[in-house]
Amino acid sequence: MKKIIAIDLGGTSVKIAIVSQQGQIIEKWSLPTMSQQKGQLIVPTIIEAIISKLEERKERVEDYLGIGMGSPGTILKDGSVKGAYNLNWVNPHPVKAIFQQEINLPFVIINDANAAALGELWQGAGKGCSDLVMLTLGTGVGGGIICQNRLIEGSSGSAGEIGHITIDLSNQFQCSCGKKGCLEAIASARGLTNLAKVLAKDYQGSSSAYQAFMVSQTIDAEKLIKAARAKDDFALRIFDEFTKYLGLACSYCANILNPDRIVIGGGISNAGTYLKEAIENHYQHFVFQPIKDQTQITLAELGNDAGILGAGYLLLLKESGK
Amino acid sequence: MKKIIAIDLGGTSVKIAIVSQQGQIIEKWSLPTMSQQKGQLIVPTIIEAIISKLEERKERVEDYLGIGMGSPGTILKDGSVKGAYNLNWVNPHPVKAIFQQEINLPFVIINDANAAALGELWQGAGKGCSDLVMLTLGTGVGGGIICQNRLIEGSSGSAGEIGHITIDLSNQFQCSCGKKGCLEAIASARGLTNLAKVLAKDYQGSSSAYQAFMVSQTIDAEKLIKAARAKDDFALRIFDEFTKYLGLACSYCANILNPDRIVIGGGISNAGTYLKEAIENHYQHFVFQPIKDQTQITLAELGNDAGILGAGYLLLLKESGK
Repeated sequence: MKKIIAIDLGGTSVKIAIVSQQGQIIEKWSLPTMSQQKGQLIVPTIIEAIISKLEERKERVEDYLGIGMGSPGTILKDGSVKGAYNLNWVNPHPVKAIFQQEINLPFVIINDANAAALGELWQGAGKGCSDLVMLTLGTGVGGGIICQNRLIEGSSGSAGEIGHITIDLSNQFQCSCGKKGCLEAIASARGLTNLAKVLAKDYQGSSSAYQAFMVSQTIDAEKLIKAARAKDDFALRIFDEFTKYLGLACSYCANILNPDRIVIGGGISNAGTYLKEAIENHYQHFVFQPIKDQTQITLAELGNDAGILGAGYLLLLKESGK
Repeated sequence: MKKIIAIDLGGTSVKIAIVSQQGQIIEKWSLPTMSQQKGQLIVPTIIEAIISKLEERKERVEDYLGIGMGSPGTILKDGSVKGAYNLNWVNPHPVKAIFQQEINLPFVIINDANAAALGELWQGAGKGCSDLVMLTLGTGVGGGIICQNRLIEGSSGSAGEIGHITIDLSNQFQCSCGKKGCLEAIASARGLTNLAKVLAKDYQGSSSAYQAFMVSQTIDAEKLIKAARAKDDFALRIFDEFTKYLGLACSYCANILNPDRIVIGGGISNAGTYLKEAIENHYQHFVFQPIKDQTQITLAELGNDAGILGAGYLLLLKESGK
């Protein structure tokens, strides 16, 4: 049975994998992302790596069903990518056109948050589900939505911008998008520092997390969650605000879409069950009660492989006409 | 070409129509909803009316593609309806099974808010669009969601519960669902009275709307919006809060789904452009800026016909295998 070439393009490295139609990763490797020279070298380098790999494996393009790729930025209908600032692709960059000129295989490309959602649906926390929302908690907050096994892309490709819902009407926090009060300005790695700044103003209790923050003026997500777990008072207050807004955002997704699962992924989700349960407690308070037990919060399972598996799955879906 | 029988079941009346596959209403009539005797008579009465109509028109069931129906309540996978309290269908009522026993035609049934959304997509404010969210502002707040021409029903049929998102964290307003702070407890006909009660507490200005409210202790949506338009101070303050929360809810739908249109319908939407523009102003402030001009707010166009057209369209979609 034909295999799939899957690519997960990131700001510092490109992950490439050969994936079976059953979702097994047969071979996986990575290379640095060549983002210098306005990002002109990124795609040629990936193509070269794929062609060498096929030679090394003594395979031909006919052994493959096609290529699926996940990329940062906005994906346009013609397979160009724009607004991927860390790749230096500010204006539309014709990724699909370059691939199709060099490799004679079907090619699909999607946004990396959507790829992660599809990956979790296929082989991870959403296995067996048809409806899933994925929230990726890292430097920012990403979102991917799947309804009835289809990716929801929206009329201009901007669906899933859950990180930029205005969730704090008191507008205390400036977001990188220019707006104030976004979920991302509270419930991301950066958001933890924002929360700490506000809570530190009138803080009177006893806390080593507070003392550390007063020195560094920045919050490390992993350390903060560890301190909260150890019942540090200042860390617990930040953690409670952080998970409150995430629980609220999950309740919005549940009320609007009623998916089987809301999957929490990204670097911060490595905090595991302690984080999940805190989000869940807030979520269950905010959500429309008949949905409470129908739409469940769960942790991502695939880690760094979600993106490549999702890119491969999209290719499989398109080629099988779904 | 075969025609479609479309039914819009409401708490006080049932609208029935014969609809062409192009979306023209060929004939339309209505009858009272027989909700006494635990609602057991509702479906038989509708079936009888349809059979008489076919005799009157000298037509046979073979002249029809099928029957599409919209109903209040939760629609279960087997075509039963539950939780339709104003029909006295509390436990699952086997609507589809009764129809199929009596009339040998394909039958589909959906929630009335979803039917209205499909109707507007087919023949109204969403004509030519593939992605649409509809908000119905009446006694409560209903929601219907369509992505890529498909109705989003959710994993347990509860998608579109936009009226029950927790939008006011200060929890001032009790909702009929048992939760506090729901959109419906603010941005519905009932919600206007809730807002007036809170704003009246410390109100000091000069306003005839305020004086009228102090006597009646209730707000009539039409009069309130008229007073706001005439720059009555108290009415304007209520109207601004009301439209602020609606604009915020629209921004959530836009950020999450990025539809072509968010369609505002229901009785309150008769206030027209004045209402639409106020919601839009708040919406544009809250929404993720790249989506602002992509997802547009618009008024519903079909009024009371949205439900029957949507029910007919669902049947057409199902029978044409879409």
